[in-house]
Amino acid sequence: MTSDHPPLAAFHVYDTTLRDGAQQEGMNLSVADKLAIAPLLDELGVGFIEGGWPGAIPKDTEFFARAAKELHLVHAELAAFGATRKAGTHAWDDPQVRALLDAQAPVVTLVAKSDIRHVERALRTTAAENLAMITDTVALLVGEGRRVVLDAEHFFDGYRYDPAYALEAVRVAFGAGAEVVTLCDTNGGMLPDGVAQIVGDVRAAVGHGPVIGMHAHNDSGCAVANSLAAVGAGAEHVQGTVNGYGERTGNADLIAVVANLEIKQGRTLLAGPGGLREATRIAHAISEITNISPFARQPYIGASAFAHKAGLHASAIRVDPDLYQHIDPVRVGNDMRMLISEMAGRASIELKGREFGLELAGQDQLLGRVTARIKTAEAQGYTYDAADASFELLLREEVDGDRVTYFDVESWRVIVETNAAVLGRASAEATVKLTAGGTRTVATGEGNGPVNALDHALRQALVATYPEIERFELIDFKVRIMDTMHGTDATTRVLVETMDSGADATWRTVGVGPNVIEASFEAIVDSIVYGLLRAGVTRR
Amino acid sequence: MTSDHPPLAAFHVYDTTLRDGAQQEGMNLSVADKLAIAPLLDELGVGFIEGGWPGAIPKDTEFFARAAKELHLVHAELAAFGATRKAGTHAWDDPQVRALLDAQAPVVTLVAKSDIRHVERALRTTAAENLAMITDTVALLVGEGRRVVLDAEHFFDGYRYDPAYALEAVRVAFGAGAEVVTLCDTNGGMLPDGVAQIVGDVRAAVGHGPVIGMHAHNDSGCAVANSLAAVGAGAEHVQGTVNGYGERTGNADLIAVVANLEIKQGRTLLAGPGGLREATRIAHAISEITNISPFARQPYIGASAFAHKAGLHASAIRVDPDLYQHIDPVRVGNDMRMLISEMAGRASIELKGREFGLELAGQDQLLGRVTARIKTAEAQGYTYDAADASFELLLREEVDGDRVTYFDVESWRVIVETNAAVLGRASAEATVKLTAGGTRTVATGEGNGPVNALDHALRQALVATYPEIERFELIDFKVRIMDTMHGTDATTRVLVETMDSGADATWRTVGVGPNVIEASFEAIVDSIVYGLLRAGVTRR
Repeated sequence: MTSDHPPLAAFHVYDTTLRDGAQQEGMNLSVADKLAIAPLLDELGVGFIEGGWPGAIPKDTEFFARAAKELHLVHAELAAFGATRKAGTHAWDDPQVRALLDAQAPVVTLVAKSDIRHVERALRTTAAENLAMITDTVALLVGEGRRVVLDAEHFFDGYRYDPAYALEAVRVAFGAGAEVVTLCDTNGGMLPDGVAQIVGDVRAAVGHGPVIGMHAHNDSGCAVANSLAAVGAGAEHVQGTVNGYGERTGNADLIAVVANLEIKQGRTLLAGPGGLREATRIAHAISEITNISPFARQPYIGASAFAHKAGLHASAIRVDPDLYQHIDPVRVGNDMRMLISEMAGRASIELKGREFGLELAGQDQLLGRVTARIKTAEAQGYTYDAADASFELLLREEVDGDRVTYFDVESWRVIVETNAAVLGRASAEATVKLTAGGTRTVATGEGNGPVNALDHALRQALVATYPEIERFELIDFKVRIMDTMHGTDATTRVLVETMDSGADATWRTVGVGPNVIEASFEAIVDSIVYGLLRAGVTRR
Repeated sequence: MTSDHPPLAAFHVYDTTLRDGAQQEGMNLSVADKLAIAPLLDELGVGFIEGGWPGAIPKDTEFFARAAKELHLVHAELAAFGATRKAGTHAWDDPQVRALLDAQAPVVTLVAKSDIRHVERALRTTAAENLAMITDTVALLVGEGRRVVLDAEHFFDGYRYDPAYALEAVRVAFGAGAEVVTLCDTNGGMLPDGVAQIVGDVRAAVGHGPVIGMHAHNDSGCAVANSLAAVGAGAEHVQGTVNGYGERTGNADLIAVVANLEIKQGRTLLAGPGGLREATRIAHAISEITNISPFARQPYIGASAFAHKAGLHASAIRVDPDLYQHIDPVRVGNDMRMLISEMAGRASIELKGREFGLELAGQDQLLGRVTARIKTAEAQGYTYDAADASFELLLREEVDGDRVTYFDVESWRVIVETNAAVLGRASAEATVKLTAGGTRTVATGEGNGPVNALDHALRQALVATYPEIERFELIDFKVRIMDTMHGTDATTRVLVETMDSGADATWRTVGVGPNVIEASFEAIVDSIVYGLLRAGVTRR
């Protein structure tokens, strides 16, 4: 190993949510999405974040360029993914390889063939040339100061077909300076016993120095167990994705793999103070960005993972929770849900109140009222995890007995229609009637879409009385259909994120209804009210 | 064993979808639902169907009463689930035990404590009395001609805490005539190595005659692997649920367990001619009855389980599909699908064309045009891997030179406004002007929200000319804000899923624009056009 980077940590947790996870059907991450997800992975404490394939995918080239300037990772190293050089060329002359260097990531992960059938039939080259492609490309990147991971694609199938060739691919990679060779179950069909045996064989063949990695897919429903089997047989690097995202049945669910290794086998794998204790929040935040509904039954971090149906054992669970759950959910930042209304619910509301400067300890009646109200609201589709500002407004309303208001809306109307002047392009117009500062105002706004128009109309009606709102900018707007079995008749949830450019602060609000525009209006009004409240403005 | 039923098959596949699966959050099966699901399980070829807990749950009592008359199972035996007698009573005097006999099922599965802590703290009885409860209840049921399965609850945790007591519970059950003792990982926290070791210990302790069963939950993400580990260590009875339904993270996914054992280990476990080859259809039919959206990434039977996205591999996949999938999807009744994305090359478009019955091989100019068009469209925010129908319309347009149309939209308008009559509730109204069947129509629809209203208006304008659209139902509607840094001014993508109730078919379409309503209109129009096209309707 010629790299002069600091020595490896004892074990690599290698996240590929942004690269292999993004192969999932229906997922389409923008550069902004990737830049928002990476800090969350870093906060989780993974060692490596594979960001994409610069050179092959223009969006990924842009991601690495922006990451170099905008991303400030505390724990993780960024890895650029790419392939070994083309057959019959020099590595230096291969633009794809050059793009990997240009990406400026400290780690480069190279995918390479290790199954002779893929070499001959897909790559259409010779056994020897494929090995030369590995050697040349690894050596070039190491020579340029990169830490190199070699992903041996289709390794397990290849090893079963021709073990000598598969092993040779691993050997030449290490020989050229690769720090890790990852054995990939690319088709995901392995079972744990087979993984343990083959990883053990490779371990025996390469000796105890080099780091062997595992990359599992879930086609047999065993990705987590296969990752554990590999670690049991000597792998010291595991790859996976948050929420198990990935092509077909997905990649190994990285949080489940790490939780099993940390909590059940007593290892310490994640960096940083939070680690697994933040896992549930981080996984859910990532699913907000990917806009893929979280799977309630996801191990460890799913909404149902520690939810007990109240039944015969309800009282027993309350007395001896450890007899009824495999781990304390706090260890992964999750909650036992049956208890939320009785105990944990009140405690977290108390805690939340303290964040807002409200001391609620001992106010049992108030806490009971808030708990009941949250339950009703969440049943309707509201979510307060992702909408702190709406929750604070709700809490203050219960404490003060009155909702904070700055203006009184009388009515609003939005018209969207096809634009005769611009074929195939609709226009939107909104009118809001409200009273603010003792004056009744009727204001009309235009916009690309109905929500945009409504936002403009509302601001126009308010700015004379509350000029502070000129500093507020809506920076994020998310729509989720809650009950997908009702088609266009379903309940809609809108989350809005607003920034106060004068105070470098952001906050999030929520609106819910059968009507996307109505839900948006609720979230926007809350966002303005909260912004004025936190700026210390009093009603005029 | 005093049962005069035919001897046991070599291996038990024991389904508990209707009992433990029904514990899933949000699932509520009626008697009719259970009566509809049982024949599907029978068709799959499971050996046992656990139907519920007669006596404890009134709906389940009714299920067994109706099943005795209405259900005609070909392969499976019906099992009634219940508990051992209460402490300090005679089994004959326990109404819950009597109800198990009254259910008239040939098999009774008894849940019993095997963890001494649960005996003392939850049951609040003595170690000896719990063993007597097992012996008495098993003996009574066996004496009445029932085949008895004993589910040893919390067995693995109990064995780790007090192996002697846990084993004694197993021994007394076999001693009293139980045919199977199932070791339950009730809290779901086990990992495969631990399961293999403990099942091996039990196997050694009870010798090679008695049948040991496994009941796994997925809290560690290892339910499938744990089931396989148990079988590897000598278990001959596996319990699980279709689609992995169940409390918290769910039970072992029975289809994945059986597929791994049959396809990868060469066993024959399911009865009947169809078996696994019908698994995908059966699993999806069951999810229609439970009304829980199928999980696309579900191993073997998920919609994405054999869907490939990567464009670079498409040409190789076409030549050698077996190098890119862990099994032939036909073996579980699933299909290989190619997803169209910005990474897609010409080869994957060719493959996709073949799915639609269009032969594009060699048409380089056309393929180049389609590839370029997809790239442009995806840069605008379209996504075709989640919208097959929109892609087929695009492809046909390029092949035919003309877009398929059935009607010509002149203009539309949507008005959403606060409703004076119902405070805090907005109403929506849409008007569409179009020409269909040679007639110009102006139609107005109302709805909860703007998209709903527009959908109603469009249908009203078209139904006279195309009565087929009455069969089309919008079953899913997803909104995604593409560029979140532009707030309410961002680009919106709408995905719509439509079902033809007359043809048991679904398809997905996409619309994109700065305006959520405009994007929705595009996706809905595409969905109607595609539905008419696939129904073989010609323009009227």
